[in-house]
Amino acid sequence: MPQKCSDLGERALIRRISKILGGVEQDDCAVIDLGEDFLVVSTDMLHRETDFPEAASPWQMGWMSAAVNLSDIAAMGAMPLGLLIAVGLPGDLSVDLVDGLFSGLRDCASAFGTVVLGGDTDSHQELTVCGTALGRVEKDLVLRRRGARPGDIVCTTGALGGAGGGLKLLSEGGEGDLARRLLEPREEEGRALALSGAATSMGGDGLARRLLEPQPRLVEGRALALSGAVTSMMDNSDGLALSLHDLAHAGGAGFLIREEDIPIDPKVEALFPGEALDLALHAGGDFELLFTVRPDRLEEAEDACPLTQIGIVVDSGVWMEGSRGRQRLEARGYQHL
Amino acid sequence: MPQKCSDLGERALIRRISKILGGVEQDDCAVIDLGEDFLVVSTDMLHRETDFPEAASPWQMGWMSAAVNLSDIAAMGAMPLGLLIAVGLPGDLSVDLVDGLFSGLRDCASAFGTVVLGGDTDSHQELTVCGTALGRVEKDLVLRRRGARPGDIVCTTGALGGAGGGLKLLSEGGEGDLARRLLEPREEEGRALALSGAATSMGGDGLARRLLEPQPRLVEGRALALSGAVTSMMDNSDGLALSLHDLAHAGGAGFLIREEDIPIDPKVEALFPGEALDLALHAGGDFELLFTVRPDRLEEAEDACPLTQIGIVVDSGVWMEGSRGRQRLEARGYQHL
Repeated sequence: MPQKCSDLGERALIRRISKILGGVEQDDCAVIDLGEDFLVVSTDMLHRETDFPEAASPWQMGWMSAAVNLSDIAAMGAMPLGLLIAVGLPGDLSVDLVDGLFSGLRDCASAFGTVVLGGDTDSHQELTVCGTALGRVEKDLVLRRRGARPGDIVCTTGALGGAGGGLKLLSEGGEGDLARRLLEPREEEGRALALSGAATSMGGDGLARRLLEPQPRLVEGRALALSGAVTSMMDNSDGLALSLHDLAHAGGAGFLIREEDIPIDPKVEALFPGEALDLALHAGGDFELLFTVRPDRLEEAEDACPLTQIGIVVDSGVWMEGSRGRQRLEARGYQHL
Repeated sequence: MPQKCSDLGERALIRRISKILGGVEQDDCAVIDLGEDFLVVSTDMLHRETDFPEAASPWQMGWMSAAVNLSDIAAMGAMPLGLLIAVGLPGDLSVDLVDGLFSGLRDCASAFGTVVLGGDTDSHQELTVCGTALGRVEKDLVLRRRGARPGDIVCTTGALGGAGGGLKLLSEGGEGDLARRLLEPREEEGRALALSGAATSMGGDGLARRLLEPQPRLVEGRALALSGAVTSMMDNSDGLALSLHDLAHAGGAGFLIREEDIPIDPKVEALFPGEALDLALHAGGDFELLFTVRPDRLEEAEDACPLTQIGIVVDSGVWMEGSRGRQRLEARGYQHL
C-alpha cells in the first residue's frame, strides 16, 4: 500500500519536499537577493474548516489571513511591501461574506502600514484563502532561524497561550454569554480594537480576540533587527515548544528554557489554571516572536521592544527546567498533517 | 436571500473585491516599486477537481501549477525570480503523488531558468496548489494591459485552441488508445518534451500536452519587452475572446480581429473542423501572449519572436470580421465562478 501523507506527518513531509526541490532553507520566508537588499516572501494557505475557528466572522477570517503572512515578514526583521490573496470560493457562498473577508484583509494590511496588491479567484467546495506577503530588509539586518550561539539569551515578545485559551474557550462555549457574543458579527468593534493594537486586552473577550485577530509583530521585529542584538528569530505560530525545536533544528543549537519565566497570559492562568502552561507551550496561534540575543547586547534588544527572557542557548537539545527538574521539552504543537 | 458568488460571476466579483481594496490595477501581476526596477508578483490557485484534467499525472499537475504562474511573469515582460508553492494536501493522499507534484514544479521552474524557493503545507479535503511567481523588470520595459492605441497591431504568439482541443480529446476519450496512453504516468518522456519546448508538436498526443504541459512564453515576453515595440500585453489563459475583452477594458480601447488570421492549431482543425474556431476563441488554457504593437515598429516585434498579426486596435468594442461580416465578439471564455 502506498504511503500516505498522514502517515508521514507535516515536518517529515516538508523535509521530503525540500529534498526534491534541492534543499530549501527553513526560514519563515523565502529570501531573494535584490542586490543591496533581500526580498522576503511568505505564503500560507488557510481553509475554513481546518484553520478558521467556527466563531470567526468573515472580517476576522480576512484579518487572520493577512496577519499570519505578515507575521512571517516580521520574523525576518523586514518591512512589508504588500500582500497578494488567492481565494477559492464555493459558488453558493454569500457575496456579503466575501465583502467581509476582503474588508478584514484590507484593514489588517492597513493597520500594519501595507496594502493588498492583487490576487486570484477560483471556485472551490470549501472557502480557501492563500495569502502571500512580501517584504524587504537590508542584507546586514535580516534575521534568520539560524544564528543562535551557546550563551545567547532566549526571548519572546508578548504573552503566550492566549490564542490557545481563546480556542478552548470558544470550543467549550464557556464564560456565559461570551461565546454567543463572539459568534455575532462585530466588524466595527473588531476593527476599532485591531487598530488600537489592544488585542492583548485581558477584559471580556480578550482571549478569543487573541485567537481571531492576531497582531503580527512587525514593529517589534523591525526594531529588533535594527538593534543589531538579535542572532536568530522566528514567529511562534505553532506554539513555543515546536518553534523552539524548529529554531534548534535550523540553527544547529539547543535551548534551556526556565518554566517559571515563560510569560503565560494571565487570563489563561485565571481561566485554565491546570492547563495554562500546556497551552502556552503547545497550542499555537499566538504569533509572537521567538528570538535569541547576544548577552553583551541585551540592553539594546530591551530598548527595541518589550521582551521576556525565558532561557539560554545551549549546545543541543530542547530542555525545560521547572518544578519537576530538568526535562526534555516535547516537540508537540500545531501540525497540519 | 443573500446574493451568492455564483449569481455574480467571476469578473463582477473581482470588480467588487477590487473596489473594497481601493482599486487594484487589472494586470497579470501586481507591481511593486523597487526603485530602479519593478517587482512583479502573481498568484494562482488550482484545485484538483476544477483545474486539473483527470488525465493529468502528478508531475503534470506540478508542471501546470508552475507554468500558469510563470505565464503571468512572461506577460509583464519580466524575468522570473522564483516561485513559492502552498499546497493543501488530503491526509490520505499518497506520498508518491506529492513527490511527482513537486518534481513537476521543480522541472518546470528549472526549464524556464528559475527555482521553487519555498512554500507552505496545509491539510485539506481536496488537493489544492497555490503558486506565487515573482519577477523583475526594468521600469521602462514593463508591459501592462493598458497602453494600446487605435491603429496599433494586435498580435499573438503561437497557435490557439490546442489546449481546448486537448481537453475535448481527453473528455471524449478519442483517438483510439491515445487517451489511455495519456493516463499512464510518463514523467521522463514529459520532462524531455518540456525541456525541448516542443509542446506544439502536432504528432500523437501533442494536443493533450498543450493542455497538460503549457509552456509559459517567458523568452518571447522578455524579447518583446526589450524590442520597445509593444504597447500592451497579457496572456490569453482564459481564451482569446475573454482576453481581448479584458485587454480592451484595462486599456480603454477596442479591437477588430480578422477571423481568417487567427492562428488555429492545425491539429485542432483536423480533429474538430466544425469547432476549431470556437475552441481557439473561447476554450482557454493556451497560455500564449496577446499583445499590441506600434505599427511603425512591427519589424522589431517580429525580430523579437514569431508572432501572428490578427487585427488592429480601434476606439471601442471587440469585433470580429469574418465569413459572416463584422460582428461583436462575445465575452465568453473560461470563468471560474
